[in-house]
Amino acid sequence: MPTFKAPKGTRDFYPEDMAVRRRIEDAWRSASIGHGFEEIEGPTFEHLGLYTVKSGDGIVSELFSFRRSGGTDDYALRPEFTPTLARMVAARGGSLPRPIKWFAIPSHFRAERPQRGRLREFFQWNVDMLGLDDPSADAEVLSTGLAALDALGLRPDVATVRLSHRDAVASALEALGVERESMYAAFQLLDRRDKLPPEEFAKKAGDLGLGPDGLAAFDRLARIRRPITVDPAEIAAETGVPVAAFEPMVALREALDDAGVSEWCEWDLGIVRGLAYYTGTVFEVHETGGGERAIAGGCRYDGLVELMGGPPTSAVGFGMGDVVLGLVLRDRGLLDGIEPPRPTVFVLVADDVAERPAARILASLRQAGVHARRSYRATRNVGKLMSEASRAGAGHAVIVGRELEEGMVVVKDLRGGGQETIPVDSLVTMFTGGDDE
Amino acid sequence: MPTFKAPKGTRDFYPEDMAVRRRIEDAWRSASIGHGFEEIEGPTFEHLGLYTVKSGDGIVSELFSFRRSGGTDDYALRPEFTPTLARMVAARGGSLPRPIKWFAIPSHFRAERPQRGRLREFFQWNVDMLGLDDPSADAEVLSTGLAALDALGLRPDVATVRLSHRDAVASALEALGVERESMYAAFQLLDRRDKLPPEEFAKKAGDLGLGPDGLAAFDRLARIRRPITVDPAEIAAETGVPVAAFEPMVALREALDDAGVSEWCEWDLGIVRGLAYYTGTVFEVHETGGGERAIAGGCRYDGLVELMGGPPTSAVGFGMGDVVLGLVLRDRGLLDGIEPPRPTVFVLVADDVAERPAARILASLRQAGVHARRSYRATRNVGKLMSEASRAGAGHAVIVGRELEEGMVVVKDLRGGGQETIPVDSLVTMFTGGDDE
Repeated sequence: MPTFKAPKGTRDFYPEDMAVRRRIEDAWRSASIGHGFEEIEGPTFEHLGLYTVKSGDGIVSELFSFRRSGGTDDYALRPEFTPTLARMVAARGGSLPRPIKWFAIPSHFRAERPQRGRLREFFQWNVDMLGLDDPSADAEVLSTGLAALDALGLRPDVATVRLSHRDAVASALEALGVERESMYAAFQLLDRRDKLPPEEFAKKAGDLGLGPDGLAAFDRLARIRRPITVDPAEIAAETGVPVAAFEPMVALREALDDAGVSEWCEWDLGIVRGLAYYTGTVFEVHETGGGERAIAGGCRYDGLVELMGGPPTSAVGFGMGDVVLGLVLRDRGLLDGIEPPRPTVFVLVADDVAERPAARILASLRQAGVHARRSYRATRNVGKLMSEASRAGAGHAVIVGRELEEGMVVVKDLRGGGQETIPVDSLVTMFTGGDDE
Repeated sequence: MPTFKAPKGTRDFYPEDMAVRRRIEDAWRSASIGHGFEEIEGPTFEHLGLYTVKSGDGIVSELFSFRRSGGTDDYALRPEFTPTLARMVAARGGSLPRPIKWFAIPSHFRAERPQRGRLREFFQWNVDMLGLDDPSADAEVLSTGLAALDALGLRPDVATVRLSHRDAVASALEALGVERESMYAAFQLLDRRDKLPPEEFAKKAGDLGLGPDGLAAFDRLARIRRPITVDPAEIAAETGVPVAAFEPMVALREALDDAGVSEWCEWDLGIVRGLAYYTGTVFEVHETGGGERAIAGGCRYDGLVELMGGPPTSAVGFGMGDVVLGLVLRDRGLLDGIEPPRPTVFVLVADDVAERPAARILASLRQAGVHARRSYRATRNVGKLMSEASRAGAGHAVIVGRELEEGMVVVKDLRGGGQETIPVDSLVTMFTGGDDE
């Protein structure tokens, strides 16, 4: 007799797990719609080339790729949503009204070693705004993400947005002596600075053209973390970078302030984000304690739609997965007590003669859209059945018994207390607020 | 410049497509919850063995199977949900309270030739009830499916449930002379009767032990289609089968009547359903015209949980995909006019000085949970901006302009007509019904 388990790094969602997932998805969907984004989705797998076209991505080594037995096409399970979105925008070329404001909540797959905060299948909320090359788009996308965190019970004292701007950092690095053609390598070094021994870091910085002074300035720049209310001019003074380099940060800060999300945000010029197609604004949302991986990550990716064969299109977006977010919420008790929907009515059979009429009463309630359940136990002991109704979390119990001979049933209010005997015919009306059809 | 397309047989869901999918999913979810089912989900891919353990399934040839590059495990994209469900029930053994009432709306994958009504990736609603070996469970599952069809606008004159009962048909075939050990072959023949030339059909029937009389009776049985209100005894008389064979149909008919769904149902003893693990009740939902594939298919599968290593567990359920259902609804105009959610408020900037205050007004509305949009156009022409607000389907337009100097904005009712000038401070209250926070 074989026994099967879910594949490593995937999850079974039993009703209590699914209730939590629904809570998170509902917060994501409500925030998206409230901010004027429209939902889209794409295939769960794509042609492998869609993910490998942009070489240098770390994601490629984590792909679940496959070829259909007997087929000739190579596919991969979706590791991220942005390539699908860029493909969809490219396919409709210029015919979509701008700006395009889309969100999606699909499943994603990464063939990496499962560990805390990382699974092989997870759900990720993607919010993207395309065709508006203005910091207000960055702020709109980010404030959508924060609205969902707020709805889930997270506040600026618990979650922080760490922001940087690749153009600003690139200008700063250039001012410190990094050659333009070494900029990609410089960002890679910035990203890995805490993972490298100091001497290796110094050597690599030297390869970029930085002397000891430049190295010290690079290091200071990488460690800048300041409230967003701090004027970028101050950061320029502190790091010895000309203030003009930080110009893009001034406009971004203003847009974030207008969007009412400044209190969540801080500058962190060490934020790089891995993907090669990122441009401009980059950010990560972290729990303030910092123990977990990033809750969300976002960026501008102005070149990607064109890479997919579409028109040049500015773009900004973020992804927020369910795994780290779930850990952060659970650690703070914000997922306690979440359970599947509870019934409005629980129907009990108090007498054998009532069994088939009770089935019909149940059906009429359900056909009217009332969430109604019944006991499946053979007992006619009303006390035991009432306990079952309470355990089910029902609002009311409908007791179908001998009163039926007079066309009546007993309705018990399980929350407010009290009971009344009412005609069977008015039962549906009682629970649909008058519209009995 | 590469251009990519969605893989063959998969779909891109643009906002208007996604709105339709949400409509269908919402009907499925509401019907499920109203009937007391709780939502679950499982992994998108499973160990290949989960699907091949029950050999003889047609599904195996349509699997998207794969092995992770560098890995040793064989996986397959989910072609149906029932094996996952049975695995989940088996994993929790006897600890789940009975009956188990679960539903799921996951994506499914079949590597078959895409054609009308069949795609390689589709969504399927699964409703299952386990641990109650009673026809009332069959009726409860089926009436849940019909409640969703009803909510989507289908009625018994458009959609028909064709029901059979494998035990009854097996008893009938036995009475006609089919040996017990040939029963599986007999059901295969029953399933394929319309695809075989008469002489081949007669030959295969002969192999089952049926003489000319038995063959004629078999053929009559296979073509029985009667309203569910017809007494199975009548069918017995008509086919020359002892009435006792149809006993299971009597109880099923009573349960369907109590559940209030008889008018949707008819007996069709030619319904077999392909899967080898089906037992007892089998049914398909078809549009009455009959031109499309089945909208839904369901059955008892009492042995499956045990096959997955769990305790013996009675089970009944159905699956309803989004593709055929979508075709049937669309052909009847029942998907016309479905669009993504429309905004409550559309914010316009009527003067340059109002630009940043308008951004703050927009943010405050959204933070209060109001679905609010804005114009992204540079124009300050109120007429043009109002047209844009109307096209967006907004309920109200908020015009932010020179009135702001007195702390006022203009609110225009785009549906009822009329406008008023109100203090900025009371704007959020106006759209949240008083709770301004």
